[in-house]
Amino acid sequence: MQYTAVKLVKRPGLTITPDIFEAVTLETPELEDGQVLIRQTHMSLDPAMKGWMTEDRNSYIPPVELGEIMRSGGCGEVVESRHDTLKVGDRVWGMLGWTEYAVSDGQGLQTLPPGISEEAVLCVLTLPGMTAYQGLVEIGKPKAGETLVVSGAAGSVGSMVGQIGKAEGLRVVGTAGTDDKCRWLEDELGFDKAINYKSDSMQQQLIEATPDGVDLYFENTGGPVQHAVFNRMNAHGRIIVCGMIADYNTDQPSPGPNWINVIKRRLTIQGFAMPDHWDNIPKMTAALTAYYQAGKLKYRAHKLEGLTSAIEGINLLFTGGNTGKLMVVL
Amino acid sequence: MQYTAVKLVKRPGLTITPDIFEAVTLETPELEDGQVLIRQTHMSLDPAMKGWMTEDRNSYIPPVELGEIMRSGGCGEVVESRHDTLKVGDRVWGMLGWTEYAVSDGQGLQTLPPGISEEAVLCVLTLPGMTAYQGLVEIGKPKAGETLVVSGAAGSVGSMVGQIGKAEGLRVVGTAGTDDKCRWLEDELGFDKAINYKSDSMQQQLIEATPDGVDLYFENTGGPVQHAVFNRMNAHGRIIVCGMIADYNTDQPSPGPNWINVIKRRLTIQGFAMPDHWDNIPKMTAALTAYYQAGKLKYRAHKLEGLTSAIEGINLLFTGGNTGKLMVVL
Repeated sequence: MQYTAVKLVKRPGLTITPDIFEAVTLETPELEDGQVLIRQTHMSLDPAMKGWMTEDRNSYIPPVELGEIMRSGGCGEVVESRHDTLKVGDRVWGMLGWTEYAVSDGQGLQTLPPGISEEAVLCVLTLPGMTAYQGLVEIGKPKAGETLVVSGAAGSVGSMVGQIGKAEGLRVVGTAGTDDKCRWLEDELGFDKAINYKSDSMQQQLIEATPDGVDLYFENTGGPVQHAVFNRMNAHGRIIVCGMIADYNTDQPSPGPNWINVIKRRLTIQGFAMPDHWDNIPKMTAALTAYYQAGKLKYRAHKLEGLTSAIEGINLLFTGGNTGKLMVVL
Repeated sequence: MQYTAVKLVKRPGLTITPDIFEAVTLETPELEDGQVLIRQTHMSLDPAMKGWMTEDRNSYIPPVELGEIMRSGGCGEVVESRHDTLKVGDRVWGMLGWTEYAVSDGQGLQTLPPGISEEAVLCVLTLPGMTAYQGLVEIGKPKAGETLVVSGAAGSVGSMVGQIGKAEGLRVVGTAGTDDKCRWLEDELGFDKAINYKSDSMQQQLIEATPDGVDLYFENTGGPVQHAVFNRMNAHGRIIVCGMIADYNTDQPSPGPNWINVIKRRLTIQGFAMPDHWDNIPKMTAALTAYYQAGKLKYRAHKLEGLTSAIEGINLLFTGGNTGKLMVVL
């Protein structure tokens, strides 16, 4: 059976351009013992992909090699099986890649919880939710009553961070790039305050929204929000650095804050990446599933149609053009 | 009995100028029950004092109020006592201030270990050694075989950090501001490499001195060394931020590094200040005394003579003009 996959064939420049990808037609192979064939139905697009495409071998995960199918997480259905436990019809999640079909020996595949849609899995239970949980809860160690600021709050990770923060009893302030996103955060997700970071009064709004200062900052963006929040940090504040999307499409990354306040306020700034924390998946999945089933984790999915729509569509993440978790429905 | 003390009477500008101090003549009071009179013999001068003089009430310790005797640690001898346990002739250490005599109820005073000189106490067992131990060992959690870089390595804290690092089995690279200081670090203190940060080839020397990258960076200075070391950090590297002396005498603090590498290398940047860690003093004192008595912690004292020499002399810390731990012998 013929299917389409998308390979990475060039390294990206400052922005991701269509010519770095090549759509190819492949033939599904005969399965060997222990293998399954998966038809991907929902493929995740994430800001981290920009990093995976670049040549940097000092990052938390090796780059995608040129000529390889582009890396991504996604949900699919087992359509053929010579595997002991995975059966035809099973719904699974894993790093399937930019492809309509994938062969797997089952390693790294998770079975979807019953009664939870593929959309919810991609928006809540997999990378966005796990990243939010690991960063905020495991690294940030929030205490009820503390104030959390999250940048990129309307993004796939940021929206989970804020909602987990509310569930953990924090005052939650988010920043986002449009008034519509801010309304969604306040009205639908229950943020205490959402601030449009493009507003001239961003700094003043931040000061007013954090009358007791900031104990936890979950950083998804970098840019001017970073400096404004840094100046509001309380003693023993924790900054969790998850993303710097404002700097992914530039060759002149913006300077960080001077470290004098790191001493004066005894701050901790900690970066993390999920491949270091896969062993925490069972705990995170249990916690996220419970929050989700209690109605505490809402999401908005931004769906593209068809595999090759990813080639242009991924740039929505860097222009802020997506509204909700970006994914491709196949 | 008349004695001299030095009060802080103005806040400093960019640099510490003599007019912010006032030397006054005071009379020793009659002691009350429970008090001792201490004649200070060795008074410590430290970079942190610049911060204590400024108005910043968000720092780790309140500012010295105008009209108060300037704050400092020092060693002295009990010359009069109406205290239950402290006797005339006892040698003590504590926050005595810029003064020839001080009255105390004993709170916060430590008795000097027998057989250890006042110089060694100020250079090793009190703030420099404790700051080095708390930062490097308790916060940095070094593992034998790792590579440590310490900036301001010839300073009172930096020289202890490097020697504790060697004692803990690390590869130790230091930066300092003169070739003489670098020779001292390599020849006397056993650093694996010391680099003059003013050298044009500083970056190249750093790369050569850290063939396996940098696991731990103990930051005392800020400035160009910070960026050069930051770019050498290994995955899961720890940066301990103790001082930023390059920025203490400027109103335009230099920008910090961009945080993208905080994510890619999963770095932790942590600030600390000793007032948060006084409860760790017994453990630190025991560890430092053992290292010192084993000959592993050498020091160089830079001695000024007479209390009022501090007024001009403190600036040696900010020009790099001191060679060794700066103190005033009274």
